[in-house]
Amino acid sequence: MIHHTVFFKLNSPAGSESEKEFFGAAEVLTAIPGVLDFRKLKEISPKNHFDYGFAMKFSGREEYDRYNTHPQHVLFVSRYWVPSVADFIEIDYEVIA
Amino acid sequence: MIHHTVFFKLNSPAGSESEKEFFGAAEVLTAIPGVLDFRKLKEISPKNHFDYGFAMKFSGREEYDRYNTHPQHVLFVSRYWVPSVADFIEIDYEVIA
Repeated sequence: MIHHTVFFKLNSPAGSESEKEFFGAAEVLTAIPGVLDFRKLKEISPKNHFDYGFAMKFSGREEYDRYNTHPQHVLFVSRYWVPSVADFIEIDYEVIA
Repeated sequence: MIHHTVFFKLNSPAGSESEKEFFGAAEVLTAIPGVLDFRKLKEISPKNHFDYGFAMKFSGREEYDRYNTHPQHVLFVSRYWVPSVADFIEIDYEVIA
C-alpha cells in the first residue's frame, strides 16, 4: 500500500473565499479511480511552515500512476494547485513495521 | 487525535550496522506512555531526499508533550538521533475531513 501525502501553504489567507474554492475544487480528486481514504489534513507543527495536507492511499504503483495522469488531476493541478499553492512538499511512504 | 510524523535521512548507508543500531534503539519510543500506532516508514517519493519515517499518534496535546519530555525520548534524541540523522522534517497533523 502506497501512502501519498502532500503538505502545503496557500497564497490565500485562512478562511478566504479563494481558499474555500481551492478545497472545493480538490473534491474531484477523491473520486479518481484508485484513490483510497482521501483525507484533508490541518498541519499543526510549529517546526515547518505548511498549513494543510492531503493524504490518500493507492494499492500499488499502477493505481498511483493512473491518478497522476488522470485528466481530473491534471486539470486540478493546472487550474487550482499551481496558482494557489505558495509552497509544498510531497512525501510518499510504505509502512515497513 | 494528533498524528506526529518525522521523515529523515541517515548518515549511515542503507543496510549498515549503524543503521540497524539506530532502528533498534528507536524501539524504546514505542513503549513510551501515550504513543499510539507507532510505525516505521520507508519514504519512496523521488521528490524529496528523505529515506525513512516514523509515525505515531497521540490522543491529545498533553500526551504529545509528555512524550517529548519523556527521559527515554530525550535519551534517544541525544544518543542516537542527533549523531545519526543527516536531515529531517517533522510534520504533525489532525484529520479535518
